[in-house]
Amino acid sequence: MLDRSTIIGFISGFTLILSAIVLQGDLMVFASMSAFLIVVGGVLAATLVNYSYENIKYSFLTISRMMGAKSVDLRTDMELMRMFAKKVRTEGILTIDDEIKDLNNDFLQNGLQLAVDGYNRKSLGNILDDEIQSHERQLSISVKVLDSMSEYSPAFGMIGTLIGMILMLQNINDPESLGAGLAVALITTLYGTILSNMVLGPLAGKLEYLSKLDLNRKEMFRVGILSMVEEENPRIMENKMLIYLEPKQRAEYKKYHEKLPYGTNREEKLFQEWTKYQNKEWETLNENLEVETG
Amino acid sequence: MLDRSTIIGFISGFTLILSAIVLQGDLMVFASMSAFLIVVGGVLAATLVNYSYENIKYSFLTISRMMGAKSVDLRTDMELMRMFAKKVRTEGILTIDDEIKDLNNDFLQNGLQLAVDGYNRKSLGNILDDEIQSHERQLSISVKVLDSMSEYSPAFGMIGTLIGMILMLQNINDPESLGAGLAVALITTLYGTILSNMVLGPLAGKLEYLSKLDLNRKEMFRVGILSMVEEENPRIMENKMLIYLEPKQRAEYKKYHEKLPYGTNREEKLFQEWTKYQNKEWETLNENLEVETG
Amino acid sequence: MLDRSTIIGFISGFTLILSAIVLQGDLMVFASMSAFLIVVGGVLAATLVNYSYENIKYSFLTISRMMGAKSVDLRTDMELMRMFAKKVRTEGILTIDDEIKDLNNDFLQNGLQLAVDGYNRKSLGNILDDEIQSHERQLSISVKVLDSMSEYSPAFGMIGTLIGMILMLQNINDPESLGAGLAVALITTLYGTILSNMVLGPLAGKLEYLSKLDLNRKEMFRVGILSMVEEENPRIMENKMLIYLEPKQRAEYKKYHEKLPYGTNREEKLFQEWTKYQNKEWETLNENLEVETG
Amino acid sequence: MLDRSTIIGFISGFTLILSAIVLQGDLMVFASMSAFLIVVGGVLAATLVNYSYENIKYSFLTISRMMGAKSVDLRTDMELMRMFAKKVRTEGILTIDDEIKDLNNDFLQNGLQLAVDGYNRKSLGNILDDEIQSHERQLSISVKVLDSMSEYSPAFGMIGTLIGMILMLQNINDPESLGAGLAVALITTLYGTILSNMVLGPLAGKLEYLSKLDLNRKEMFRVGILSMVEEENPRIMENKMLIYLEPKQRAEYKKYHEKLPYGTNREEKLFQEWTKYQNKEWETLNENLEVETG
Amino acid sequence: MLDRSTIIGFISGFTLILSAIVLQGDLMVFASMSAFLIVVGGVLAATLVNYSYENIKYSFLTISRMMGAKSVDLRTDMELMRMFAKKVRTEGILTIDDEIKDLNNDFLQNGLQLAVDGYNRKSLGNILDDEIQSHERQLSISVKVLDSMSEYSPAFGMIGTLIGMILMLQNINDPESLGAGLAVALITTLYGTILSNMVLGPLAGKLEYLSKLDLNRKEMFRVGILSMVEEENPRIMENKMLIYLEPKQRAEYKKYHEKLPYGTNREEKLFQEWTKYQNKEWETLNENLEVETG
Repeated sequence: MLDRSTIIGFISGFTLILSAIVLQGDLMVFASMSAFLIVVGGVLAATLVNYSYENIKYSFLTISRMMGAKSVDLRTDMELMRMFAKKVRTEGILTIDDEIKDLNNDFLQNGLQLAVDGYNRKSLGNILDDEIQSHERQLSISVKVLDSMSEYSPAFGMIGTLIGMILMLQNINDPESLGAGLAVALITTLYGTILSNMVLGPLAGKLEYLSKLDLNRKEMFRVGILSMVEEENPRIMENKMLIYLEPKQRAEYKKYHEKLPYGTNREEKLFQEWTKYQNKEWETLNENLEVETG
Repeated sequence: MLDRSTIIGFISGFTLILSAIVLQGDLMVFASMSAFLIVVGGVLAATLVNYSYENIKYSFLTISRMMGAKSVDLRTDMELMRMFAKKVRTEGILTIDDEIKDLNNDFLQNGLQLAVDGYNRKSLGNILDDEIQSHERQLSISVKVLDSMSEYSPAFGMIGTLIGMILMLQNINDPESLGAGLAVALITTLYGTILSNMVLGPLAGKLEYLSKLDLNRKEMFRVGILSMVEEENPRIMENKMLIYLEPKQRAEYKKYHEKLPYGTNREEKLFQEWTKYQNKEWETLNENLEVETG
Repeated sequence: MLDRSTIIGFISGFTLILSAIVLQGDLMVFASMSAFLIVVGGVLAATLVNYSYENIKYSFLTISRMMGAKSVDLRTDMELMRMFAKKVRTEGILTIDDEIKDLNNDFLQNGLQLAVDGYNRKSLGNILDDEIQSHERQLSISVKVLDSMSEYSPAFGMIGTLIGMILMLQNINDPESLGAGLAVALITTLYGTILSNMVLGPLAGKLEYLSKLDLNRKEMFRVGILSMVEEENPRIMENKMLIYLEPKQRAEYKKYHEKLPYGTNREEKLFQEWTKYQNKEWETLNENLEVETG
Repeated sequence: MLDRSTIIGFISGFTLILSAIVLQGDLMVFASMSAFLIVVGGVLAATLVNYSYENIKYSFLTISRMMGAKSVDLRTDMELMRMFAKKVRTEGILTIDDEIKDLNNDFLQNGLQLAVDGYNRKSLGNILDDEIQSHERQLSISVKVLDSMSEYSPAFGMIGTLIGMILMLQNINDPESLGAGLAVALITTLYGTILSNMVLGPLAGKLEYLSKLDLNRKEMFRVGILSMVEEENPRIMENKMLIYLEPKQRAEYKKYHEKLPYGTNREEKLFQEWTKYQNKEWETLNENLEVETG
Repeated sequence: MLDRSTIIGFISGFTLILSAIVLQGDLMVFASMSAFLIVVGGVLAATLVNYSYENIKYSFLTISRMMGAKSVDLRTDMELMRMFAKKVRTEGILTIDDEIKDLNNDFLQNGLQLAVDGYNRKSLGNILDDEIQSHERQLSISVKVLDSMSEYSPAFGMIGTLIGMILMLQNINDPESLGAGLAVALITTLYGTILSNMVLGPLAGKLEYLSKLDLNRKEMFRVGILSMVEEENPRIMENKMLIYLEPKQRAEYKKYHEKLPYGTNREEKLFQEWTKYQNKEWETLNENLEVETG
C-alpha cells in the first residue's frame, strides 16, 4: 500500500486537473494514445540509454516498497531497543537470541544476530557502517533515475509538440484546421509537464525524503546495537539514540518516561508482547501497556 | 504577528500588482476560482506526493512562528548572559536556579537548567550540539518544502494555461472569442508566477534567512552556557559570544561598555528587573537603566 | 557491441518518434540535411573550440569501449580472487605468475604482476591508487565533453530555427508559404532537442554511470590485491571485497558459500578452468562447477 | 564616487540601449511609469518579504561604499607594512603607537592597536580571524540579497506583461489596437530583463568580486600584523604577505626592491611622509621617493 | 597562434552557419551593425560593471596566450627533468646553473633557480605551492569573466529583440512590414545565441580546460624540483612525476625506457642539445636521439 499523503496527493492532483478540463470542455479532447506513447515511451527509452532496465525497475520497486512500508514510529523502536538493552545488561546477550527472529526490520535483525554471534564492537561497527553506506549508494542511484526521468519528460512533450506543429504547418491548406492541429500538438507538452511535475518529480523527491528517514533509522539502530555490544548502561544508549528523533517526538518520549511511576510491570509486559507492537504507533503501545499499569 | 518587512512586502507587492490591473482595466477579469484551484491545489497535491501533510503543516507553522517571534536583539541577550555569568562566578550556579524558569527562550532555559543540574562541560556541550544539529535538520527540511512548492507553482500555472489553450483552439469556430479564451488561459500562468515569485519563493528565502539567525543565536547561547559551566571569567565569555553579533552591533556594545562609569548600580538593577527587558531592544534596556545611573 | 539497454533504448526511442511522424504525416517532411548539418556540425564545432579533437574522439571511444565490454559480474571476480588468494596463501605468490597473463582485465593483471614482482604493500597501494585516480580524471573529462555537447545541441537547434524564421519573415510576399517556412525552420529545433535528450544527454549519463561501476570494480580489485600481498586470510580479503558488491548480490554470494558442502573439488576445478569463466555470469560458473560437486 | 569601470559600464550600456531605440523610433514609447513601478516595486516587495529592509539598505550601502573606496594598491600597503615592521623590529612596538591613528583602514588600525596594547600572538590571531569571518558572513548576505533581486526582476517583468496581455486580449474588439497593446505589455519584460542583466546581476557580481579583494587584503594585513607581534624578520613578513598579491604585481614589487641601491634615505623619507602615500598608487609613491634617492 | 582545434572549430562553425544562410537566402539580411553593437556592446558593458576593464583584458590575454603556447608534451618535459636530475645527482646542483636560463617555462626556470640558490626543501615547497595557488586564483577569475559574458549574451540578444518588437508593434499601420520588422528584431537574438554558444561559452570552457592542463604540468614540475633538491634517485623522481601523465602517454614512456638498450649515448646527446627539443613532441626527440643510438 502506498503511503497516505502520496495517495491523497495523486488523487487530489489528478481530480483537480480532470475537473478543470471537464468544467470547461470535453475530456475526450485530451485523451491521446499517441501523446501518451511519445512522452512515456520516450522517457523510458532515454532512461534505458542512460541507465539500464534493472535500474529503472529497481527504482520503482524501491519507492513502492518504501511507501508501502508499515508506518514507522521511532519512539516504538526506542522502546524495543531499551527493553532489549536491559535484558542484555542483566541476563547477557544470548537471552535475546530467540527474540531476534521475530524482528521485521532486516537491518536490526542482522545487526543483533551478529552481536549475538560474538562479533566485537569494532568489526561489528565496520560491518554496519558498510551496510548503511552501500544502502545509501543504491538509494542515491534510484533517486537519480527518477530525477532523470522527470527531466526528460518535458523534453519529450516538446518533441511531440514540435512534430505536431511541423506537420500542421506543412499542410496549412485549410486554415480552419490550424487551431485543432495546434491543440493536438500541445497535448504532448501538457502530458510531459504533468508527468514531470505531478508524478516523476514528486516521486523522486519522496524517495529522497524517505531514504533520509530510512538511513536515519538505520543509524539509530547502529548506535543502539553497538551500545548493547559494549554493555553500556541502557540509559546512555537511550540518550545516544534519542538524537535521531525529531525534537518534538524526543521531548514527548523523554517526558513520558520521566513521569512513569516507578516499579510498574510495564517492562515485563512489553517483553512478552513486543512483537505485537513493533511498527505500531507509539501511542498504541502506550495505551495498551498503560491499562495494565493503572 | 508577522515580522514587519514581510507584511510591508506583501502589502506593497500586492497593492502594486492590483493597482497595475485596476489602472488599466477591470479587476474582475483576473478573478478566477478555477485558476486559483488548479495552481494552489496542484502545488499542494504535488507537495503532498513529494513530502507529507505533516511536513507542509510544519513548514508553515515554523515560518509563522519564526516571523511572529518577538524581535530579537542579540545585545540584550548579551546583557542578560553577562549578568547571569557574574552571579554564577560570585555566588555559584545554584543562584540562578530560580531565574531560569522566567526565561522565554526554550534553548537557553533548557541549557541553563542542565547546567544547574550539574552536567559537566563535555556532556552538556554534546547535548547542546545535538540539539542545534537536529533543529538545523528540521529547518532545512522546512525550507526545502517551501522551495519545492515555489518550483511547482509556475509548472501548474503552465498546465492550466495549456488546458485552456487546447480547449480554446479546439472550438475555434468563433475567432472573436479566441482572444478572450487566450486571456482566460493566461490567468493561471499569471497566478503561478505570482505565487512563486511574490509568495512562496520569498517565504522560503525568509525561512532560510531566519533559520540562520536563529541557529547563530543558539550557537551564541551554547558558547555562553559552556563558559558559565567552566566558570570562566565573564569577560572571556563576553568576548567569545561577541563573535556572533554583527560587526556594527558588536562595536556599539563594546563601545558602550567601555564608556560605562565604574561603580554604577546598573548590574543590580538589571538583575532585579531583567524579565522586563528580555526580547526588548537593547536601546530600551539602556535607556531605563541609564536613568538610575545618572 | 553496445550494451543491451542502450540498444533497446535507442531502437525503441527512435521507433516511437518515427512512428509518431509516420502515423500523422509524411516522414520525408522531417528529413533535412541542412538541419542535420547545422545541429550536428554546430555542436561538433563548438565542442572543438571548447575541448580538442582528441577529447571528443576519446569520449566516444571510451563510451563505445565501456558499453561493448563483456558483461561484468562482480561475484565471478570474487570467485577468481578468492581462488588466487588461497593459492597465494598456501603456495606463495609466485604460483600465480603463469596465470596472470590470462587475465583480461588490465588493471587486475598489472596489479597482480607488480605484486608478483615483489612490490611491498605501501608502494603497491600508492601505484594502484594513482592508477585509479588518473583513470577517474580521464573519465570525468569524457563525461564533461558529452555533457557539453548535450548542452550545445538545443542552442544550435535554436540558431537554425532563428535563421529559418528570419529568412521566412523577410520574404513574406506569399502568406501561403509562411506555414511551410515555419515548419522547415522548426525542424532544426526538433533535431537539437532529440539529439540532446535522446542521444547525447543519455549517453553522458550512461558514461558517468558506467565509470562509477568501473571505478568501483577497480577499487575492489585494489583491496583484494593488497590483501594478497599482505598474505591476509582469504576470508578477510573476501569480507573486505564484498563491500563493493550490491546488497542483493552480496547476500546471494554469501548465502551460496555458506551452504556449500565442505570438501568439494570445486576449488581445484575452478583453478584449472578459471579462464573459461572470467567475465561470465556467476550463475554460469556455478552451474558448471555444481555438476562436478553433485 | 563609484569605481571607474562600473560608471563606464553603466554609461556605455545605457547609451547603447537608448541609441538603439532612438535610431529606430521614438524613445517616449518606451517610457512607462507603470512598467517601472511594477518591476522595481515588485522586486523590492519580494525582497522585503525574503529579507528585511535593513538587509536591502545595507547591501546598497556596502556596494556604494566598496565601489567608492579610494583605489587600493596592495604594493603600497606592502611598503607601509614593511616600514612599520622595520621600526617595530629596531625600536619596539610602542614606536608606532602615534602612527596608528593616521591609518585609514579600520581593520589594520584596529589590529595594530591591539598589537600595541600587548595582546599575544594567539589571541590576536583569533580576534583578527573572527573579524574577517564575521565580515565575510555579512558580505555574503549582501551578495545574496542582490542576487535574489536580480532573479526576481525578469519574473516581475513577466507578471507585468501577462497582465497587459490578458487585458488586451479581453478587449479585442478593435484588432488595430492589438499591436500597440502588446507593445505596451512587452515593455515590462524589457524593463525586467534590463534591470536584471544590466544593473542588479552585474552589481551582485561586482560586490562578490570586491568582497574577495577586500577579504584578501584583510588576510594580508592579518599575516603582517601577526608577524610584527612575533617580531619576525621584516623580510620574512614581506614574503608571507607577498602571496596575497597578483603574480604580476608581486614580480614588479620584488624586482624593484632587488634593484634598489643600498643605503638610500628612502625608508626614512617614507616614514616621515607615509600618510601622504597611503591608498595612493605604488607608482606615485615610487616616483616621489625616487627623486630624493637620485 | 591559436591552438588548432579552436581554429578548426571556429572556421567550421561559422562556415556552417553562413552556408546555412547563403543556401536559403541573402546573407546581407543578417548583417546588422546595430544588432552587433547591442549584443557585443551590452555584454561588454555589463561585464565592465561586473568586473573591471583589467579583468576582461586579462581574460582574453590569458586565453590567447594559453592557446598560442607551443604544444606541450609532458613526456618531453619528463626527459628533460630526468636528464637534469641525473646531472644533479652525480655532479651537484650547481652544474645546471648555466642551463636554467635556456628553459622557456617560467615556473620551471624560477623553481630550479631557487633550488640552485640553496633554498631548502620545505621553504621551496611552500614557495612553489603559493605560486601554483595564486596562479589558480587568477585563472579561475578569468574563466568566470568569460562565463559571465557567455551568460549575458542571450540576455542582450533578447533585449534587442524586445526593443525591435515593441517598435514594430507600435507602428503596425502597414501589416505588410510586420514580418520584416520581426525578422530584424530576431537578428539580435540570433547574434546573442551564436555569441554565447559558438564563441564565449566554448572559449570559457577551453580556458578552464587549458588551465587544468597547465596546473597539472606545474604540479609535475613542482614534484620534480623538490625531488631534485632532496637528491632523490632520479628513478623515484620519474615515478612521482609520471602520475601527472595520461595513462596512455605514461605507458608509452615507460615502455620506451624499459626497452632502451643499456649504455647508449642518448643521455649525453640530449644534454648537449636539449634546448632544441624543449616544447617539441616527444616523438621528434626520440627520432633524433634514436639515430645516434643505432
